[in-house]
Amino acid sequence: MRVAAITEPGRLEVLEEPVPGIGSAEVLVRVVACGVCASELDIWRGAAGHATFPWYPGHEVSGVVERVGDAVHAFVPGDPVSVWVTTRGFAEYVAVRAEYCFPAVGVPLELALGEPLACAVNAVELAGVSLGDDVVIVGAGFMGHLVHLLVELRGPRRVFVADARPDALKRAEELGAALTVDVTREAVVDVVGRETGDVGADVTFEVTGVQAALDSLGDLTRMSGTVVIAGYHQGEPRTIPLGVWNWMAFRIVNAHFREVETILRGMARGMRLLTSGSISLAGLVTHRYPLEEIGAALQALVDKPEGFVKATVMP
Amino acid sequence: MRVAAITEPGRLEVLEEPVPGIGSAEVLVRVVACGVCASELDIWRGAAGHATFPWYPGHEVSGVVERVGDAVHAFVPGDPVSVWVTTRGFAEYVAVRAEYCFPAVGVPLELALGEPLACAVNAVELAGVSLGDDVVIVGAGFMGHLVHLLVELRGPRRVFVADARPDALKRAEELGAALTVDVTREAVVDVVGRETGDVGADVTFEVTGVQAALDSLGDLTRMSGTVVIAGYHQGEPRTIPLGVWNWMAFRIVNAHFREVETILRGMARGMRLLTSGSISLAGLVTHRYPLEEIGAALQALVDKPEGFVKATVMP
Amino acid sequence: MRVAAITEPGRLEVLEEPVPGIGSAEVLVRVVACGVCASELDIWRGAAGHATFPWYPGHEVSGVVERVGDAVHAFVPGDPVSVWVTTRGFAEYVAVRAEYCFPAVGVPLELALGEPLACAVNAVELAGVSLGDDVVIVGAGFMGHLVHLLVELRGPRRVFVADARPDALKRAEELGAALTVDVTREAVVDVVGRETGDVGADVTFEVTGVQAALDSLGDLTRMSGTVVIAGYHQGEPRTIPLGVWNWMAFRIVNAHFREVETILRGMARGMRLLTSGSISLAGLVTHRYPLEEIGAALQALVDKPEGFVKATVMP
Amino acid sequence: MRVAAITEPGRLEVLEEPVPGIGSAEVLVRVVACGVCASELDIWRGAAGHATFPWYPGHEVSGVVERVGDAVHAFVPGDPVSVWVTTRGFAEYVAVRAEYCFPAVGVPLELALGEPLACAVNAVELAGVSLGDDVVIVGAGFMGHLVHLLVELRGPRRVFVADARPDALKRAEELGAALTVDVTREAVVDVVGRETGDVGADVTFEVTGVQAALDSLGDLTRMSGTVVIAGYHQGEPRTIPLGVWNWMAFRIVNAHFREVETILRGMARGMRLLTSGSISLAGLVTHRYPLEEIGAALQALVDKPEGFVKATVMP
Repeated sequence: MRVAAITEPGRLEVLEEPVPGIGSAEVLVRVVACGVCASELDIWRGAAGHATFPWYPGHEVSGVVERVGDAVHAFVPGDPVSVWVTTRGFAEYVAVRAEYCFPAVGVPLELALGEPLACAVNAVELAGVSLGDDVVIVGAGFMGHLVHLLVELRGPRRVFVADARPDALKRAEELGAALTVDVTREAVVDVVGRETGDVGADVTFEVTGVQAALDSLGDLTRMSGTVVIAGYHQGEPRTIPLGVWNWMAFRIVNAHFREVETILRGMARGMRLLTSGSISLAGLVTHRYPLEEIGAALQALVDKPEGFVKATVMP
Repeated sequence: MRVAAITEPGRLEVLEEPVPGIGSAEVLVRVVACGVCASELDIWRGAAGHATFPWYPGHEVSGVVERVGDAVHAFVPGDPVSVWVTTRGFAEYVAVRAEYCFPAVGVPLELALGEPLACAVNAVELAGVSLGDDVVIVGAGFMGHLVHLLVELRGPRRVFVADARPDALKRAEELGAALTVDVTREAVVDVVGRETGDVGADVTFEVTGVQAALDSLGDLTRMSGTVVIAGYHQGEPRTIPLGVWNWMAFRIVNAHFREVETILRGMARGMRLLTSGSISLAGLVTHRYPLEEIGAALQALVDKPEGFVKATVMP
Repeated sequence: MRVAAITEPGRLEVLEEPVPGIGSAEVLVRVVACGVCASELDIWRGAAGHATFPWYPGHEVSGVVERVGDAVHAFVPGDPVSVWVTTRGFAEYVAVRAEYCFPAVGVPLELALGEPLACAVNAVELAGVSLGDDVVIVGAGFMGHLVHLLVELRGPRRVFVADARPDALKRAEELGAALTVDVTREAVVDVVGRETGDVGADVTFEVTGVQAALDSLGDLTRMSGTVVIAGYHQGEPRTIPLGVWNWMAFRIVNAHFREVETILRGMARGMRLLTSGSISLAGLVTHRYPLEEIGAALQALVDKPEGFVKATVMP
Repeated sequence: MRVAAITEPGRLEVLEEPVPGIGSAEVLVRVVACGVCASELDIWRGAAGHATFPWYPGHEVSGVVERVGDAVHAFVPGDPVSVWVTTRGFAEYVAVRAEYCFPAVGVPLELALGEPLACAVNAVELAGVSLGDDVVIVGAGFMGHLVHLLVELRGPRRVFVADARPDALKRAEELGAALTVDVTREAVVDVVGRETGDVGADVTFEVTGVQAALDSLGDLTRMSGTVVIAGYHQGEPRTIPLGVWNWMAFRIVNAHFREVETILRGMARGMRLLTSGSISLAGLVTHRYPLEEIGAALQALVDKPEGFVKATVMP
């Protein structure tokens, strides 16, 4: 079968390998789609300290069960599933433990993005959005949209979304934003101050991964409110006005998760919402590539052409 | 002004009293509506151990600000408000601290029932409904409907509602129930078992206050799931199959709150949802009475005629 | 090897079986001690609905690593360990996954009772004892003592312990109780009322498993306080004065756990405390039996002779 | 009476003012001692943005009840109390609401420092130290010692304390540290790595308020562990290696509190521990000054002479 590997920084190859065997508690899944994640850009560029080469990227897999081990009773061949893997997802097949597969019945498989959805579910749950909260989301990329989608499900009073791209703000409106802020035209701090009587929002999500967004959080959030860092802050250390954050007594939430049980729980919840039709990712996967063009998929994530939200590779 | 009092068990009178004065931090509110609560039935019947007579019932007040103390800046005369009081609500006027008043702009005042909404908000928040949960609500009276309304805001996968009254189940469907169960026709345990693959619901709310509902919870809820006792269980001690609840390791939530800060927080959240239009109680206040007919209002709560959900007194 | 089985209700036999093999991620442990648990009495008597026969009791195992699978690097033969198993503990050997073994270095193995300690750790953590709390523990048997030992570690102001056995109360004093109550001489409600100015305790643990203790909780605990049901309530349904518990707005904690990750986490914490010398179970294992006398061990648990706290079987 | 004021940056004066009157719900307290807090240094230096002049410093008051308002029943003249005030504590008398006073019976009043104790109680509770945790405390000044004292009460496995001052480390040993690290001689990261098998601590407290301590936290704390920022980070924005903190999925706790109910709850808990003898601040108040020498008290806090921990002013 074919599988993509980063053989050295900057070099992506599609290799030929045997289809993996499965143990008695495992499932072989024929990959239908595998989303491209920003964290993979850093490895591709050689900027992720933890990566060793060859690195087999791909961890947002959905597909169809091809074969199951003797001890697996939850799935049969033909079942559509979203799969949790940490690597080797840009391939024709993946072999995984059955408990890492989640039913995706009735969901178009390129939209059954269970892994990023798990991140967003866990972020929103940990943020502790309460009934009637005012919520600000800074950043309306793919993860920002997922967070937004889920925040709307938690009974907020109003959701404000800030971004610099008009098409992103348009999608945020469609997802239910009470107000969107084009940060190239007005300061989000001014808008939130005006709308909340200078009190600030109850919960503020930073979903950009850039320094500038961190700077604004202190002025967007009410005293004793919650600041959620959901962006992926690789590279340079970040500067934080800790004196202000102290003074304001913010609850700071680092929305990143490493415990497998937590990730799986978030994924189960996200897939329940997708399969029941409570949410849909329609419109959020904007670019599709065959496996051979995985380099172009990564490049699209770098270039972010007009209208780009998320790329997926379909082997 | 006129004010209702239970002068002795079974005896309700409308008395004449002076309009209350207000302190510098207080507000005088002209009462527009005051909901009738089941807990007042017990006092009326002389069955509530904590009550002394004369008892001045009425604690679900909404109205219009008539006058404010010197130190009050949050309200001006004419402001519509929902008010937290613990007594004396069936009257023409109530005097309360300004922080016990919540703006009710744009909400029909007989539907601005902040106090029961506070109970429901706190019950749902404490229940910890998570994204994608299956939720069962046993009991579709007024409080059951409020709980249901708010559970739907928390991003569940499915809400199942059980009751014996067809009109209650019809309203539950309109509020978004995935499935309603007429308990005169089928056992809720059978339905939930069938729909969840015999796993049970993640969260089960008991909102009836009767023994029979408690009996069913153990078989409705999944292992390590949450059982919420939101019904008001006055009178006889209740029997609980604690051996089963132990074995199933349920999280048991007693959804009753006595700390003022908690009640006020719930009320603030509920009123935010009402005034922003996120929810509406339209259709849930079914019976209206002038102050002189407060006895009839209480009797309606006893009799529960077809279509009855909630009575309010409008002085 | 020899292994004890309940072949039918009331009949305990020691059978001969092959030493179990181990998989690559497993460990073979030579059992040194296995505690006898009250839950096994019910099975012995045929009173536990979930049990099927033959039932192989024994789930409080400690011992010495005999052999490890290829993939096990955390242990080597000779390591003393406390082991999580759900069955077959009254045997010469048990085979378990390596992550179910916890180091027991420096702890006498008959006192390395990780499983009941896990229950107590989880109960105390879930109870949420806060700094400066007044805590009541009703029941000073083995589990009551474990709970007590751990509550003392959480920084309470005072711990009150109630029981009917003078020797139990004497041990409670040695464990640090501020006050012990001999319930054959005075009502615990009177003592707690007197000591707390009629406010009640912040947290009350019921660790008896009997109806009478449940009756007292409502009067022992302060408004909005926490009631922890840690006793094992098999048999008849229990009666609870739910009207009072509603009115008092208690937080009710059902201190029973079924999720493996929770049990393992509690066991890891408990064993850390034992191996670091923060706590010791010295004096709590009062009766020791060879494997052939397991019947006598169970009978001791029924009879509870003077001075009895806990029996262990040492194959 | 005499009261200290910062009349302009750098200028401290003792003014003569009338003894304050009290309302019916208030208490007049004769001040016996008022601790000097680092936050007051910034105001004195003119570096605290929120302060306006004249500023009346002093918020760590203890004393004796002199007089009570009509509605006060909890206290009588002569009662020793620890008092929550936000200002005007360096004075002969303070007038406060009765619910801001906490009994200090049996505690030397210059050691009845309820307010900083409240901060430490809340920090430790929010940190969520669990039974058996390994805890690192970076910074062994007065607040570091209070945090340490309370962490020892929560049942940790081991507490490691790091500081540059030998006398501070000696006190930390006396408070129960399993290990102290003199950061002028070895890197705390090396010590914690060695002692935890390169896993890191479960909970790490930063109690210094300086940049260097923040830098070290990422390498001291285990994956998915808790980082507590308890230091007071005024002045320059701080730099945080957020990429590492993301990757490690730390729970970040900002141990600063602005809600009055939270502060009062922490103070109640701290005073319960002090008055019951569970803890003592003996040895932590090292410098005492009369009111006229308040300038010298502040200067001592700047200079931190050998053996300095905390200064108090005794009017």
